[in-house]
Amino acid sequence: MIERLLQNAHAKDAARVACPDREVDEVLARVAWNVLAEPGDGVAGALIAELGPVEALRVATEDGALLVSPRTPPRVLREAMERWRPRASPQAVLDALDSAAGVRARLVLPGGPLWPAAVDDLGPHAPTLLWVRGDAGLLSADPRVAIVGARASSGYGDLLAAEFAGDLAASGGIVISGGAYGIDGAAHRAALGVGGATVALLAGGVDRAYPQGHQSLLREIAEKGAVVSEVPCGTAPTKWRFLSRNRLIAALGHATVVVEAGWRSGSINTAGHAAALGRPLGAVPGPVTSATSAGCHRLLREYDARCVTTTAEIRELWEATLVTPQGGGADPDRIRLCDALSTRTAVPAQELARRSGLSVTTVEALLGLLELEGVVTRSGTGWRGIAGAA
Amino acid sequence: MIERLLQNAHAKDAARVACPDREVDEVLARVAWNVLAEPGDGVAGALIAELGPVEALRVATEDGALLVSPRTPPRVLREAMERWRPRASPQAVLDALDSAAGVRARLVLPGGPLWPAAVDDLGPHAPTLLWVRGDAGLLSADPRVAIVGARASSGYGDLLAAEFAGDLAASGGIVISGGAYGIDGAAHRAALGVGGATVALLAGGVDRAYPQGHQSLLREIAEKGAVVSEVPCGTAPTKWRFLSRNRLIAALGHATVVVEAGWRSGSINTAGHAAALGRPLGAVPGPVTSATSAGCHRLLREYDARCVTTTAEIRELWEATLVTPQGGGADPDRIRLCDALSTRTAVPAQELARRSGLSVTTVEALLGLLELEGVVTRSGTGWRGIAGAA
Repeated sequence: MIERLLQNAHAKDAARVACPDREVDEVLARVAWNVLAEPGDGVAGALIAELGPVEALRVATEDGALLVSPRTPPRVLREAMERWRPRASPQAVLDALDSAAGVRARLVLPGGPLWPAAVDDLGPHAPTLLWVRGDAGLLSADPRVAIVGARASSGYGDLLAAEFAGDLAASGGIVISGGAYGIDGAAHRAALGVGGATVALLAGGVDRAYPQGHQSLLREIAEKGAVVSEVPCGTAPTKWRFLSRNRLIAALGHATVVVEAGWRSGSINTAGHAAALGRPLGAVPGPVTSATSAGCHRLLREYDARCVTTTAEIRELWEATLVTPQGGGADPDRIRLCDALSTRTAVPAQELARRSGLSVTTVEALLGLLELEGVVTRSGTGWRGIAGAA
Repeated sequence: MIERLLQNAHAKDAARVACPDREVDEVLARVAWNVLAEPGDGVAGALIAELGPVEALRVATEDGALLVSPRTPPRVLREAMERWRPRASPQAVLDALDSAAGVRARLVLPGGPLWPAAVDDLGPHAPTLLWVRGDAGLLSADPRVAIVGARASSGYGDLLAAEFAGDLAASGGIVISGGAYGIDGAAHRAALGVGGATVALLAGGVDRAYPQGHQSLLREIAEKGAVVSEVPCGTAPTKWRFLSRNRLIAALGHATVVVEAGWRSGSINTAGHAAALGRPLGAVPGPVTSATSAGCHRLLREYDARCVTTTAEIRELWEATLVTPQGGGADPDRIRLCDALSTRTAVPAQELARRSGLSVTTVEALLGLLELEGVVTRSGTGWRGIAGAA
């Protein structure tokens, strides 16, 4: 297949346009892999890592090639080839490149300066390339926070998504989300609204506005932020591709925050990926009477998500600030003595000792301190509390 | 002091009425300690544990007695005696017994059949006795769940407190709370409303209705459940006694659930005691925009409280049911194949393989399974999905 592509002048030109800084055979081979394999195909990932994309493509698609891999068992390779071969069409590679050129999408390849190292944590399931409309530099800028949630969100969720995304974007954070209705849309819009950076990770091609109703939002994100996908232009979003896309959102975020989510939902899937990758995971609580908060509470219960209620608490997710319980701290003797004091009547120290159950010595020592703090005052033979001072 | 009490016939009679099943000198000595020491006085607790209440009282209150303890340093003992002596009044002991008799409060002493072993987990800070109006047996009945929360609760919190307490009490649980306005009151009322058992732990004497507005509620709890305190009748609730009472609520509950709480509040204090005692702690989430849920979210963040949203989840707190994450489970190949199917047009297996990125072998095997499940049907040369079946 690679030979046929390299004989095609149009294919080579299109490859140079999409990715000017890499060898044309590698670009064409990676786009071919992109057409052959579904997102997250671990056998493809392992084979490419082992042989490089060009040689891997050769052995995967050419009948005469000797297909031997020291890492992948022959049976697994044979099964994979059965998956890939029905798609081995040079025309599909050309179509992908042409569609990308039509929307001025650039190709970001592993190992290049724009490649986000974060997705390499996915190992053999990492994408083989990324299609990017807009500012590809955002994929590696710091800090990136994934804000995701229910499509059928509530006003409560929309409000919080907008508040958190707006605050984070205004202070230089990159808000990553999935471009969907509901929480995703609220997060993207708020980031744009403060003139901040946002990245939409799509399950279909970057030339396809999905959902349709977000056509103008996605266009604005492509202009001011970035619209990104690992599947070729022209590819429809499918359930599998949504699930695969979710792992990319989780991998790209320094932390993932779920604002609202149903009990079983895509956001739970994204959160599961974040947890599996060891990325900090936050969940925003809500009324237990709200179905769109049920998934967040599930994350708190079953996924060890951190409860986040403010932008500051979201920042702590990746700032690894050690939060230690405060509580207590007040001196018990002091509380008891203050209980025993009156603001109206002066009470002798002896009587304060009896009332508080403290010794006269302790009472007198504490009264001295409290007098210095302006909490009590001497009055005749006794002591009086100063209203509102304790 | 103990000699003077034992010379008083009225004191001895009153002691026999309050606690018929124990020696009169022990009863009088414990009530004397109850008058001398504030709740949770660890020096008193240790001394009583070491010498027994009668001998401990003798050495603590009699000038000539030899005060030697192998466990407590002399300086600490001297300071404690300075605390206790201003209160060493036989009349105060008589008053406590008479006030208790006036409201038919019985005395429950450590080691007796009604003594709740759970409070012994407090060690030297365990109460020296408990005053009980109503059914003292509830203190040891199973399961006991503490449901506590904000006095200035919201309708949301009241509703949930009532739902949880009602459900738990209806199924034989004992609902423990603090008798306060707000969440406490809602929990007590709901338990009574379903004919269930509830216990109010008061910070002042059991003869004092506090808060005043709960006079009739507390009377009903005393009639149908139990009103309990560790301080003598006639004692006013003070801040210290509220904080001390909270440790008893936490110790008595097999689990503690905070329904609503402000950022700094008594419920956080109760929760802190539960956590320190190793008792399961649950917090009910709420809107992050609600100040009365801020304390619950703090418990989730800082106290490792478990997020609880239903009565069943509250039961899990003490049932130690291992909850394992579910999620996933669906076969990825199956999802991909279903994505590729159409319900309108029949698609050949070869084309399904291309669309899904699966091998033809896999597609054919899966189609066989899906046909058996009634999810797909053969149609001419291809396969069609059955609408609504996948």
